[in-house]
Amino acid sequence: MTLPRIGFIGFGEAARCFARHFADLGVPEMTVFCDGATNRPPYTPGFTALVREHGAATVDSVTDLGARCDVIFSAVVVAAAAPAGAAIAAVLRPGTLVVDINATTPSGKKGVAAAVTARGGAFVDANLMGSAELYGAKVPLYCSGDGAARFAALFAPLGLNIEQAGPVPGDAAAVKMLRSVVTKGMEALLVEAMVAASRAGVRAEALHGICAPMDATSFSRFADMCIRTDVLHAERRAVEMEGVADGLREFGVDPVMTMATAARLRASAALGLRTRFAAKVGYTADDVLDAYVAETAAGAA
Amino acid sequence: MTLPRIGFIGFGEAARCFARHFADLGVPEMTVFCDGATNRPPYTPGFTALVREHGAATVDSVTDLGARCDVIFSAVVVAAAAPAGAAIAAVLRPGTLVVDINATTPSGKKGVAAAVTARGGAFVDANLMGSAELYGAKVPLYCSGDGAARFAALFAPLGLNIEQAGPVPGDAAAVKMLRSVVTKGMEALLVEAMVAASRAGVRAEALHGICAPMDATSFSRFADMCIRTDVLHAERRAVEMEGVADGLREFGVDPVMTMATAARLRASAALGLRTRFAAKVGYTADDVLDAYVAETAAGAA
Repeated sequence: MTLPRIGFIGFGEAARCFARHFADLGVPEMTVFCDGATNRPPYTPGFTALVREHGAATVDSVTDLGARCDVIFSAVVVAAAAPAGAAIAAVLRPGTLVVDINATTPSGKKGVAAAVTARGGAFVDANLMGSAELYGAKVPLYCSGDGAARFAALFAPLGLNIEQAGPVPGDAAAVKMLRSVVTKGMEALLVEAMVAASRAGVRAEALHGICAPMDATSFSRFADMCIRTDVLHAERRAVEMEGVADGLREFGVDPVMTMATAARLRASAALGLRTRFAAKVGYTADDVLDAYVAETAAGAA
Repeated sequence: MTLPRIGFIGFGEAARCFARHFADLGVPEMTVFCDGATNRPPYTPGFTALVREHGAATVDSVTDLGARCDVIFSAVVVAAAAPAGAAIAAVLRPGTLVVDINATTPSGKKGVAAAVTARGGAFVDANLMGSAELYGAKVPLYCSGDGAARFAALFAPLGLNIEQAGPVPGDAAAVKMLRSVVTKGMEALLVEAMVAASRAGVRAEALHGICAPMDATSFSRFADMCIRTDVLHAERRAVEMEGVADGLREFGVDPVMTMATAARLRASAALGLRTRFAAKVGYTADDVLDAYVAETAAGAA
């Protein structure tokens, strides 16, 4: 297999991690272009040396990057992802694979994908499912887009940990984003609850009370139960959470997550689906979500 | 064993469920007093009949309730829990066991406990860890207070599902409350994420992306990891969540939980503990919580 000619726009932690990995595998000289606040032409001697240490060379224009590369990783700061994508699209040669690893929204990914494919390039909506600092080049990459299959074919043999999520750009970003809603949200819930528990002098008991029932089931089953019962009990639980917020305040904790929980449950209750679902037998979480989507106009969920 | 003479102040769903259960076991006539918005003396014939169907008789004053009962369950609406507790305390005979199953805050439970014990009664901070509608009289009761051990000794043989949490009133309520923060919070997170996923057309993929990593670990391990890494990565994750909130808005979902998550993570970051913990080796979640409690003045968490 001929090794692809690899370039990077942006050269932060993730890009460096991949470049180092590729260099160690013998990938020929890579190309780096930066046009950010910190690093931009003319580059400092320090930055040029850093790039060289990672087996790459800087170029002074995105045009040079496009001319030299078969695969371009876009790895800039989130605010620069759209202009960087547009700049790459304007200079790429047909067939170039653009791998957008930026943590942008689904519509942001779709916008860059449209620009890239309009110029004959292929687009990968690639999402780091963890920290490059922690996992190195083995960080799971969750990818969709018309270029995702080619990306996996080229780079899985080079040791990247690629999971494909279909041909639609933005789908992988959406899944990553929604996973973050839940995982980072759980972190915030646990911190809020456990700081309050510590203040209340019941830390060990609360941790046990929280974890033991969750350890005794699977998260999948719990998630399914949550969605199925939300449609029935959201209002009662919202009232409970408003009382719980008072309890957290008694321990000097601002109930940020708890009040948001009450508000979210009230939004479910306001859809007025309780009676309809209480009469159903054996409905599923999908049925509930279908009803929620049907009842909420876009912008009013 | 002599069966205790049981009374109820308030006679909603939970009280009825227990009364029916005790009546079925042959507990002699129980006593009910209500002074709520719906049922109060003079009671309607319908209410009197309902009470009788549950093996109990109404009385027209809390004084009569106190005179007739060895054990009084307080099962009123949350707003009435404190006055009901005070009313019971004023009339109970020494040695009476007051079982407060109301969903009040820890300080609310402590207030009633103080009034009850000052009059020679014993207090149980009892908490329904689930729905009486769902579990019936077998609903787990998480109990603390000076009367908790006696309550378990008397009522476990009568089939109640009692878990003791020590002699301090309010401790059991605090644990229940903090468990609710996490479990109802997770419900709210899952609803927010899965409605957005449904709108984005990636429902199955998102559910898998959320659940598969959680199913592959234990919740205890996840919770421990969350707290240990919050002190290092809260700021970066808060920035990510602010971007994710934009993504949810693209799908017409108000990012209530997501914005609260960002705010809670920013509060962790604002404690400025990252550098100190990044230099530590092998610190625990307890170390993080100790530091969070030490750094936050009461009222500023």
